[in-house]
Amino acid sequence: IPSKLPDVGSTIFSEMSALALECQAINLGQGFPDYPPSEVLIQAVSNAMLQGHNQYAPMAGLPALREAIASKVQTQHGRSYSVNSEITVTSGASEALMSSLLALAHPGDEVLLIDPAYDLYEPSIRLAGARAVRVPMRPPQENDPAFCIDWNRIEAALTDKTRMLVLNFPHNPTGLTLKSEDLDALETLISKHPILLLSDEAYEHIVFDGQAHLSPVSRPLLAEHTVLISSFGKTFHATGWKVGYCCAPAAVMTEIRKVHQFTVFSVSTPMQAGIAQYLRTADALSGLSGFYQKKRDRLLAGLKETVLRPLRAEGTFFLLVDTAALGDGLEKELALRLTRDVGVASIPVSAFYGDPNHPEANHQLLRLCFAKLDTTLDQALERLQGLE
Amino acid sequence: IPSKLPDVGSTIFSEMSALALECQAINLGQGFPDYPPSEVLIQAVSNAMLQGHNQYAPMAGLPALREAIASKVQTQHGRSYSVNSEITVTSGASEALMSSLLALAHPGDEVLLIDPAYDLYEPSIRLAGARAVRVPMRPPQENDPAFCIDWNRIEAALTDKTRMLVLNFPHNPTGLTLKSEDLDALETLISKHPILLLSDEAYEHIVFDGQAHLSPVSRPLLAEHTVLISSFGKTFHATGWKVGYCCAPAAVMTEIRKVHQFTVFSVSTPMQAGIAQYLRTADALSGLSGFYQKKRDRLLAGLKETVLRPLRAEGTFFLLVDTAALGDGLEKELALRLTRDVGVASIPVSAFYGDPNHPEANHQLLRLCFAKLDTTLDQALERLQGLE
Ligand SMILES: CSCCC(=O)C(=O)O
Ligand SMILES: CSCCC(=O)C(=O)O
Repeated sequence: IPSKLPDVGSTIFSEMSALALECQAINLGQGFPDYPPSEVLIQAVSNAMLQGHNQYAPMAGLPALREAIASKVQTQHGRSYSVNSEITVTSGASEALMSSLLALAHPGDEVLLIDPAYDLYEPSIRLAGARAVRVPMRPPQENDPAFCIDWNRIEAALTDKTRMLVLNFPHNPTGLTLKSEDLDALETLISKHPILLLSDEAYEHIVFDGQAHLSPVSRPLLAEHTVLISSFGKTFHATGWKVGYCCAPAAVMTEIRKVHQFTVFSVSTPMQAGIAQYLRTADALSGLSGFYQKKRDRLLAGLKETVLRPLRAEGTFFLLVDTAALGDGLEKELALRLTRDVGVASIPVSAFYGDPNHPEANHQLLRLCFAKLDTTLDQALERLQGLE
Repeated sequence: IPSKLPDVGSTIFSEMSALALECQAINLGQGFPDYPPSEVLIQAVSNAMLQGHNQYAPMAGLPALREAIASKVQTQHGRSYSVNSEITVTSGASEALMSSLLALAHPGDEVLLIDPAYDLYEPSIRLAGARAVRVPMRPPQENDPAFCIDWNRIEAALTDKTRMLVLNFPHNPTGLTLKSEDLDALETLISKHPILLLSDEAYEHIVFDGQAHLSPVSRPLLAEHTVLISSFGKTFHATGWKVGYCCAPAAVMTEIRKVHQFTVFSVSTPMQAGIAQYLRTADALSGLSGFYQKKRDRLLAGLKETVLRPLRAEGTFFLLVDTAALGDGLEKELALRLTRDVGVASIPVSAFYGDPNHPEANHQLLRLCFAKLDTTLDQALERLQGLE
């Protein structure tokens, strides 16, 4: 059997979750909460099933949910998307990404990824027949312990084959958020090179220290070029429900829908109906940043008692730690060792690089997920405090 | 925006459903029931959510559901699939088909479709970079009012580029089932040309007149070459839940999973948990054929009082009617007219052909879906009885 993706195995997330289970380790690897979604939301889905919302939803999504998404995005970013032609409900952010890349990236095209980059992008680009070109972020510095987007390098990587740039802010795995200056840089770039922006904003509702989430769609020029993608799974503590969405200008959305309609056709009707109902309650979206900031701060405080050095974490429910104090060695091996010997699973940042030995970052970084109960975080910290 | 699928619009199913809604017509077009899934099943999904099954399922599916699928397929076809490496839960049969085609069809490959063919196959083949080659069935004859697979024509269409043959029995839209002689013909074909078989068996539990559903996987030689695909949506009256599965030999499944993990990653956890639970109840799968045979017979009896001539219907919840008595004209226009003027929506069979004017079948055929309440069927029949 010839393979389209010869060098692809299980995702690092599946691999580390399986190992965590096997070793009974605390799983701070794969990004999912160990607490449930709101009972009000669960009840809304149950009611939807009992009320008969069980057959195919319209291909683009239930109108009630698309309306709720339109008004949410309007409130967040001042951008108004047509419910009929510019919003599509997808089977999680994953399917939105796959359908968008399959629809928009053509054989011969180049798609820019900013390294470290979520593991899904490159295989999807390759399945589309296109080529991923990876541009590294500036790695953390002694006096500035955070990754940093290098717009000059991105611009230098553009060729006349470049179809698209994938953005993912708040950023997985670094926790970096997009700043107003980044949007300025993007505007300059787009006015010179009118490429598409695929903006994976799955963590849009998790930003810290009083920031507001900034999306390219908040700038009219950028919005004309952007596919905005997000996930209700991350927002509502229900990663297993697989409901997400994308918004794009009508001409772009037409192409995405052509693929979406043959990828899954439509998305779970009762889940859509339940989420649409829940979004009507005032507090569905507020408080998430505060909720996660407390968890981030709890983890940061506990890490002070360890030899691990946290990097700056501005958003998402992930935090990177520098493990230099533990000596040399590959990140992946370290992650396996910590899972087996210390009982805490994490994700090696090398998994987010095109080249797993990523020469750009001579750091040894592990990603920890803090979407966990305080008791889980405390227990993990206790174990990590034993490290020398 | 350049298009990967320039000649693709909305699916005919979306189009006819939208028109039915607009005209307040009875919708016998798109294939979905107008009655709900079992309350026991709904309760099982609700309980799964309340019991905390809300985060990512394993990429291949919940083990409990994969085990239930393995034992179901073993009972049906005597074929045993490895729960670990040969079964994957998908977002409906659609995603199983898309992931399989993306994984297994390569640029330059030919994939054979038997016309009339479900509308999803060809665009998915094209997105994979391959080419669909369409081989028509023998159209209905005066003395044998049914389509018929022409194995000679299929064999004649094979080239050294042929990677795969798509099968879909019980067949949408013709209702044709696979017979033992067809499996013989397939064995002869596969022993000469070892291509892959993509067997879409979404309607496997709906076969009439005492037949048992026959799958290629019931023959060991064929099973080694087959990707078996099915849908719980069709089986459990829950087309909107989007849970299906595929089974294939491990080496083939490895490739399918590489794509599946980036298409949707995983499938709704509470739906999977609920279905796994429900499959443990003895009567989850029995009685479906009997249930639908009564509906088919009700429709057949009522059609006797109309000018429409039904073709033989052996399985699925679809039935074709010959509309020759209504005069000449394109099937599509007739379907639109019946929706608007008579208030009954159907699907023109031309939508299932590569060439919508399908020169092979000089019949004028519409597909009626009888997955409807008896009262719905009776009301539709009353309207159709007014036709002259
Ligand atoms: C789809 S499994 C990975 C979940 C996730 O987004 C992450 O851990 O980064
Ligand atoms: C996915 S909409 C089409 C449903 C169906 O299988 C059919 O009507 O043939």
